[in-house]
Amino acid sequence: MQWDGWGDPQHKAALSAGQLAMVNDLLRVSADDVDAVAFEEVRVRPSALADADRDALAEIVGEAHLSTADGDRLPRAGGKSTPDLLRRKSRDEQDAPDAVVLPGTDDEIAAVLALCAERGIAVVPFGGGTSVVGGVDPIRDRFAACLSLDLRRFDALESLDETNQEAVLGAGLTGPAAEALLAARGFELGHYPQSFRYATIGGFAATRSSGQDSAGYGRFDDMVRGLRVVTPRGVLELGRPGPKNAAGPDLRHLFLGSEGVFGVITAVRLRVHAVPETKRYEAWTFPDFATGADALRAVAQVGTGPTVLRLSDEVETALNLATVDEAGAQSAAAPAGCFAVTAFEGPAHLGAERHEATAAVLRAHGGTSLGPEPAQHWAERRFDGPYLRDPLLANGALVETLETATSWTNLLALKQAVTETLQAKFTEFGSVSLVLCHISHVYDTGASLYFTVIGAQRGDAIAQWTQTKAAVNDVLLAQGGTITHHHAVGADHRAWMTDEIGPLGVDILRAVKATLDPSGILNPGKLIP
Amino acid sequence: MQWDGWGDPQHKAALSAGQLAMVNDLLRVSADDVDAVAFEEVRVRPSALADADRDALAEIVGEAHLSTADGDRLPRAGGKSTPDLLRRKSRDEQDAPDAVVLPGTDDEIAAVLALCAERGIAVVPFGGGTSVVGGVDPIRDRFAACLSLDLRRFDALESLDETNQEAVLGAGLTGPAAEALLAARGFELGHYPQSFRYATIGGFAATRSSGQDSAGYGRFDDMVRGLRVVTPRGVLELGRPGPKNAAGPDLRHLFLGSEGVFGVITAVRLRVHAVPETKRYEAWTFPDFATGADALRAVAQVGTGPTVLRLSDEVETALNLATVDEAGAQSAAAPAGCFAVTAFEGPAHLGAERHEATAAVLRAHGGTSLGPEPAQHWAERRFDGPYLRDPLLANGALVETLETATSWTNLLALKQAVTETLQAKFTEFGSVSLVLCHISHVYDTGASLYFTVIGAQRGDAIAQWTQTKAAVNDVLLAQGGTITHHHAVGADHRAWMTDEIGPLGVDILRAVKATLDPSGILNPGKLIP
Repeated sequence: MQWDGWGDPQHKAALSAGQLAMVNDLLRVSADDVDAVAFEEVRVRPSALADADRDALAEIVGEAHLSTADGDRLPRAGGKSTPDLLRRKSRDEQDAPDAVVLPGTDDEIAAVLALCAERGIAVVPFGGGTSVVGGVDPIRDRFAACLSLDLRRFDALESLDETNQEAVLGAGLTGPAAEALLAARGFELGHYPQSFRYATIGGFAATRSSGQDSAGYGRFDDMVRGLRVVTPRGVLELGRPGPKNAAGPDLRHLFLGSEGVFGVITAVRLRVHAVPETKRYEAWTFPDFATGADALRAVAQVGTGPTVLRLSDEVETALNLATVDEAGAQSAAAPAGCFAVTAFEGPAHLGAERHEATAAVLRAHGGTSLGPEPAQHWAERRFDGPYLRDPLLANGALVETLETATSWTNLLALKQAVTETLQAKFTEFGSVSLVLCHISHVYDTGASLYFTVIGAQRGDAIAQWTQTKAAVNDVLLAQGGTITHHHAVGADHRAWMTDEIGPLGVDILRAVKATLDPSGILNPGKLIP
Repeated sequence: MQWDGWGDPQHKAALSAGQLAMVNDLLRVSADDVDAVAFEEVRVRPSALADADRDALAEIVGEAHLSTADGDRLPRAGGKSTPDLLRRKSRDEQDAPDAVVLPGTDDEIAAVLALCAERGIAVVPFGGGTSVVGGVDPIRDRFAACLSLDLRRFDALESLDETNQEAVLGAGLTGPAAEALLAARGFELGHYPQSFRYATIGGFAATRSSGQDSAGYGRFDDMVRGLRVVTPRGVLELGRPGPKNAAGPDLRHLFLGSEGVFGVITAVRLRVHAVPETKRYEAWTFPDFATGADALRAVAQVGTGPTVLRLSDEVETALNLATVDEAGAQSAAAPAGCFAVTAFEGPAHLGAERHEATAAVLRAHGGTSLGPEPAQHWAERRFDGPYLRDPLLANGALVETLETATSWTNLLALKQAVTETLQAKFTEFGSVSLVLCHISHVYDTGASLYFTVIGAQRGDAIAQWTQTKAAVNDVLLAQGGTITHHHAVGADHRAWMTDEIGPLGVDILRAVKATLDPSGILNPGKLIP
């Protein structure tokens, strides 16, 4: 990935004339307001790793799999939140891990952890580096140095059982790499978060990721049958061979969402399914968000079986950000109301039945079909959204996303409260703002809300966003939302965890941490307040 | 429930002539071999509760909600396993809790726990008392006395949100009481384990119960959205208002399956659904168990949506124990091969689609329809199975059930290994035996196996079964099974937990226990080895 932006450097997006005009005229900022820092000008804090520690680590993983070079440390200096990208382009000396280690086996990880526990070196497990919540920040805490432990060498399809429809995948496999290995055998996982192209199997598990096909295939949690975790106290093999049991609490759920603070996930046993015979799409429009949300609720509660079910609000629909390529261009074809996408997969006859049953519910709840094309178009571009942020930031806009979930009855009130809070904070900072929202994960009892906000950078844009986000977080907790539906906690949401799970919940996490990582070296400053 | 058997005393089953002949002729035992102990002859260990402690407890819950009478203590002296029932009919002095307390509020429970922690009194949370794994045994451990904390006064439908399809149910509600409260509002939970008539909402959560409709409505785990748990360190409200989140590990899963060792579950927030428009049934027969299991696997993996999906093996089919009323009578109508039940629920058109799609898969995999009647018949009698055990025990038979789960590929091998182990142990004890098996919970990656064994009591029948069960447990762990798919751990499976979850997994449970229950008063001798 690019050092200072999203994704493939060859794939850089540019703003259309309409988008640029919106930034210049509505937000009243331009590229002239932004200090463009070149890669050569970036200064990284020198590695603090002692030579003796460096040599001992090299002894474990091999010289070829250890680096203290700035060019290797900078790409692991953080994730891909807007503050991360702004920080990357700072002229100040930047923090970064003191070294990058790339172990190749569980035993090597165990040895690295033992060494680090003994010598007081922090360890940050690193997958795709797509965290937007500070999940891979190189926080040294009380330790002398901090390693980035990169899992990319855990890249094998360890096994695939076609009868049981289970695969064991290395934690370092990216979404596309995992799907390619499975596709060669006629199977797929079906986990497509927007970070799909770069994020990893281990990261999906460690952060309780949820993909765009969650209506059909569930959250990543739902796909996990087992986990192998290397902790400073030893290796845990979680999840018996069987599918489910009642042998006490299901300890897999302590490591799903553990964000590297209890151990390093090195392999995940996952439910997979045969590549579906059918993929059907249908786009819909609803007169307003409330009507559309009610229709999605009916589909979720009746259980008609769509694979994808999502709804953009009026602003997102009008800005046509549901499909990114025309974003900002109010094309003639852009529908009024609220745009929705449905998709259906499975054996041909079941795909057709699911499609028809879902369409009947949506029609009965005020939906009008737009046919398959707009939905297919969405599917083709669905991983491109993050690319647009880079030119917006470069032109002086402040753009970021945040997300939550709540019950169906609280959905509209929470959406309004978050929107008002975002706009009020941007107003305080002297900027107009656009707040876009969609539902992309539906459950029988509630749904997610995913917000994008676009305004102008004003002065210290990192502080501007940090204060804005804090105000939203307070609103989420006070008004029946969760601090995060699928972005996880990291460093950024950590201060809200006591409100989220209660002080006794925090005590439980601390007790598990003390049991597995008594030296506290694993991913300091994340998750547990 | 009856003090020495299953269920309603008015509903006592008797053996048919055919069943009695089987017991007398095949097992060569009769009622003459059994020492029938009358209720009046039972001796209960005197209450060891000190008067001062008794008075302090009465101060908290009120005199009316505290008892040290034998008649109240004996029904809480254990669960409903075969060893439990044999123990109840012993002429030796029986162990029992020293008192029964029936608190009415969370605050009262908190006060009881505080008092017991201070004075060193063990507390066994008690719901329906249907445990078959020693989950409510009054084990005093290092404590001077042991209370049975009966949750029956937590019997309210605290709330029902029809839009969100969520209900908050008191932990002490039995299955029928909960369903009656929901049905009055047009909703249902759909959790029907064989213990349904007596077991409670709190017990379902504490033991990770799974009901006969699990193919359609999931395990009890899957239904839980939130839990209220009173621990010695305070009250935990688990599960945010929203449906799902990524805010660290999902701590609900530490309390699902916690079996009363971390805290007392007093209320459960549950997903509910509208009472279905349609209930459709179809019975099937397969030429053999392997063919039937493959057909069930196909249904689970294609995802055609049955509510009930179960398959009896050849022995269970031949003995016609799939429907209990004719058990043992080889009626002319009893089908050869393997009997299977399917049921379908939902809106009329979806119920029909699910039915047709499932039937097509079963036919394609070697199934022959037997029409709706045998499946309806099964559904009508599905909670009656446990009644038959009482007259079998009274006639000198030793009958018990056990269960596990494993992957689809390991299913037949594990079934054979368990069957051989059971028969070998009964042979050692000088008895022939019949081993029946069915699949009643199917997943995409595997299934449960539920065994019933019938042999003769020989000498100390409790020791006979304990040794037999231990041999089976070793086989389960060695050959890819779990120690329990839905019966839980209790006292009986505790010794196998280190093999099940590993020593580090046990350390995690101990750390959570030490955090929430530092005095260790909650349900000693259960779950955690």
